[in-house]
Amino acid sequence: MARGERRWNGWGFEGESVSLPATAVRWLEARVGRGAPLSAVPETTVTVPPPRPLPPFSSAVASDAATRLRHACGQSFLDLLALRSGDVAAFPDAVLFPTSAEAIVADLGRAAEAGVAVVVRGGGTSVVGGVSLQRSDRPSVVLSLDRLRGLVALDPVSRLATFRAGTTGPEVEAALAGEKLRLGHEPQSFELSTVGGWVATRSAGQRSTGVGKIEELVAGVELAGAGGVWRLPPQPASAAGPELRRLVVGSEGRLGVITAVTLRVRPLPQHENGVTVLFPTWEEGMAACRAILQGGLPVEVVRLSDEEETSFGQSLLELSMPARVVSRWLLSRRRFRRACALLLGWAGSAEEVAEAESRCATVWRAHSGLGVGRSGWRRWRAERFRHPYLRDHLLEAGWGVDTLETAATWSGLAALYASVRRALAAAGEALGVPVAVLCHLSHAYRDGASLYFTFLWPLEPGREREQWQQCKGAATRAILEARGTLSHHHGVGCLHAPYLEREVGRQGLAVLRATAAALDPAGCLNRGVLLADGEPEGRE
Amino acid sequence: MARGERRWNGWGFEGESVSLPATAVRWLEARVGRGAPLSAVPETTVTVPPPRPLPPFSSAVASDAATRLRHACGQSFLDLLALRSGDVAAFPDAVLFPTSAEAIVADLGRAAEAGVAVVVRGGGTSVVGGVSLQRSDRPSVVLSLDRLRGLVALDPVSRLATFRAGTTGPEVEAALAGEKLRLGHEPQSFELSTVGGWVATRSAGQRSTGVGKIEELVAGVELAGAGGVWRLPPQPASAAGPELRRLVVGSEGRLGVITAVTLRVRPLPQHENGVTVLFPTWEEGMAACRAILQGGLPVEVVRLSDEEETSFGQSLLELSMPARVVSRWLLSRRRFRRACALLLGWAGSAEEVAEAESRCATVWRAHSGLGVGRSGWRRWRAERFRHPYLRDHLLEAGWGVDTLETAATWSGLAALYASVRRALAAAGEALGVPVAVLCHLSHAYRDGASLYFTFLWPLEPGREREQWQQCKGAATRAILEARGTLSHHHGVGCLHAPYLEREVGRQGLAVLRATAAALDPAGCLNRGVLLADGEPEGRE
Repeated sequence: MARGERRWNGWGFEGESVSLPATAVRWLEARVGRGAPLSAVPETTVTVPPPRPLPPFSSAVASDAATRLRHACGQSFLDLLALRSGDVAAFPDAVLFPTSAEAIVADLGRAAEAGVAVVVRGGGTSVVGGVSLQRSDRPSVVLSLDRLRGLVALDPVSRLATFRAGTTGPEVEAALAGEKLRLGHEPQSFELSTVGGWVATRSAGQRSTGVGKIEELVAGVELAGAGGVWRLPPQPASAAGPELRRLVVGSEGRLGVITAVTLRVRPLPQHENGVTVLFPTWEEGMAACRAILQGGLPVEVVRLSDEEETSFGQSLLELSMPARVVSRWLLSRRRFRRACALLLGWAGSAEEVAEAESRCATVWRAHSGLGVGRSGWRRWRAERFRHPYLRDHLLEAGWGVDTLETAATWSGLAALYASVRRALAAAGEALGVPVAVLCHLSHAYRDGASLYFTFLWPLEPGREREQWQQCKGAATRAILEARGTLSHHHGVGCLHAPYLEREVGRQGLAVLRATAAALDPAGCLNRGVLLADGEPEGRE
Repeated sequence: MARGERRWNGWGFEGESVSLPATAVRWLEARVGRGAPLSAVPETTVTVPPPRPLPPFSSAVASDAATRLRHACGQSFLDLLALRSGDVAAFPDAVLFPTSAEAIVADLGRAAEAGVAVVVRGGGTSVVGGVSLQRSDRPSVVLSLDRLRGLVALDPVSRLATFRAGTTGPEVEAALAGEKLRLGHEPQSFELSTVGGWVATRSAGQRSTGVGKIEELVAGVELAGAGGVWRLPPQPASAAGPELRRLVVGSEGRLGVITAVTLRVRPLPQHENGVTVLFPTWEEGMAACRAILQGGLPVEVVRLSDEEETSFGQSLLELSMPARVVSRWLLSRRRFRRACALLLGWAGSAEEVAEAESRCATVWRAHSGLGVGRSGWRRWRAERFRHPYLRDHLLEAGWGVDTLETAATWSGLAALYASVRRALAAAGEALGVPVAVLCHLSHAYRDGASLYFTFLWPLEPGREREQWQQCKGAATRAILEARGTLSHHHGVGCLHAPYLEREVGRQGLAVLRATAAALDPAGCLNRGVLLADGEPEGRE
């Protein structure tokens, strides 16, 4: 890969980073003050214990300390705390690199016989503990899909493309672009995450309002387990019992290892465009989004920032002087004192894009919206995959940060929004630190939308973990009480697993456990992920 | 109900029927000759054995012979043979009429304790043995949802409406129309079938190309089992594990009794319109349908008849003399000698409908299509729920008839089409009778479409069942070999159950069995439906 190695203790690639402009530092200092920088130990100081004995595997195996360390954690706040401190709870005893579904079947069979725990890993970007190793008496291996990559088959007539599970976002789009096709699934982790990971975690891309969540893009799937390869070939629709492909989507490695996925693709758009629209209030912005979705207007990206996120976003911009003057003037007008910025994006032929924008403009004007140009769209296009790098920078600068995402019906969104903000404020009060909460509405549907919260607080040395736990716990309970879903696109992992029953009920949990037991009777796969297994929450 | 009682031994309501015009009789006689009329015994001659002892139930119970007979069968070909001959394999020992989910929980608990088999029944229109009683040593009851009807809640902001499971199609639309909303789910059984049945069988309405299959309309669902009521409230989207609502859709009563469903509704269209387009060949028609769907054109109804169905459809029309002249002239032109008729329908504002038609016209013209007016659309609108009555008439006139529906990707449709026709022709040859096969493509998607086959043959006295079995078996195997799905919208029932493993694999069957065991541990619910239970195929 031309971009250099993955960073061992933070987001993305070595040598790439994003830092806060001075205006954003001042914004944060004014809101929550500033905490203690979270230092990071050098890799050489991390003690990786010798690997425990393992049975022979058919795939290539790596058991050197550097590889084991690089496959011990994901990208949750707790993972970052562990990696930066060097106090990593558990390491895999080896990392397997299978190159076929059949090799995975063989290796899972051996793991089952020997009682070895298996953690399945695609891009390793889970922020909810989906790939974090858990302390256990059992030996464990990480099964990496890194060598199971590439396009397997393309059916241009049906617009279906089959990829191996380890294929990353850029690889998917590069393989399709030559055929003038695209998938359009672009989660923030796009550059790192994989087809298999998208399906396992039931993810959503930033264009999901237009192209759909991953479950709508999956036409067929192949899952390897100790008992063999389960192939569900592509089908446009069926009534032959429940849609079992949908049981695989979101199964987070508990039902088997996703080895290949047939995805619904579409023509590369000739054109795309976007605009920023300011609304005087969050409520008016939400009403406009709802009207656009329920009106069936073709829109690919919908992202409405609340007042706080709009204000923070403004502080992140390093604007040219004239732009700054205009922007300040606009936001100082009484009408936009509490402005909320909506980003809308369209793709298609130039005519389709122009027509869609014009139809949306009619709606936003009816809801007091004011179009303020395309610079926000261009900036979003250029920088959207770089935001996660900011998290490492914030930790280094003294701020804790994490994100939460949920979804609810339109009629429930206002209460959900208020409830999460109230819970985070209360958690901050109990901790004795101010908490800043930013939110945007995105991934909109006819019947509801997702809310994505970012919360930031000043780090207190030695209490970072407790601070996070209090905030995360309070917000998660508030989400469930307000009938939001536990996650709209990050997944369950081990961080949300203890809460899953509150969402899906006793019966839902029983069904998931029965299904996992049917396909993974030895119970080797991704213990503690999706389903709490009486094992510790997170990495106690 | 103003329309009179349901017919005890055939489709629909007493006093309503549809008969073949003389032109259609001639068409069929020319194609396959004519068989022996299948007579029907009077109801009074059917021997209903005395009911076996049952535990006390909390719901209202009927155990009179007439009620038990009316709840013994669905509407499959085998059901009609049984009812018309009076040789009904099995009767429920009683019919329960619960009025709440809680009553169902209580009654299922008693059934489980006492080992009573329970058959769940909505509108009773299954054509695949989904509600047919099976001969068994166990006592059995039918659990009718007839008294669990009506709108429970309406959320106009989120456009969600919650209905009790026994609500029929006309009742759903009547409840919504007052709020200027509609569901738009209109299977051919619309007048009789219920919300719960639609969800249990994973059905599709005739407008599904526009409004989606039932699984896309279900936002929330409530399922009663012996262990309690499982509520999955409405959510626009989630990543909190696999979508368990999709496991309930298509579960055919094996996982519990669907008691209420929250459905995604939409505004009543101000306007709708449709047109018939003739194509010189089936291939050109299919290509046009694909281009319309893959072009993302907004279309609500897509139904392309093949050459045989177009020809038969023409014979069904009792045209005015001028129309007949025009029609004959058109079909006699060399270009349309093998014409295939496509019905397209749109709904929305008058402008939207006009624009959609104009965009579709550009596509059909590029594929050699010729728009031939709106009379076909008007006729379809007026008569589409009446076609099933024709089946009873055909049996009475000496023809056997059944339908098969499947779906495949666009690249696989031509082979699937040829394969099913070939299999039915071969089955007819082996039986020594000609078989007419009509087909239409409908319910179209970006990646594929459904094919709906109607097959007709001359009935031979005493061999009706064998004739049907040979044809149905051959066609079903051909569908699976050509990678079509076992069913696009009729479901699995007990007629398709023995074939399900070929479609979903050993693992798929294991998952479904494990799920059923988790929610119905006593194994009382809908034995033999969806999952073959070592019980006889159909009604041996």
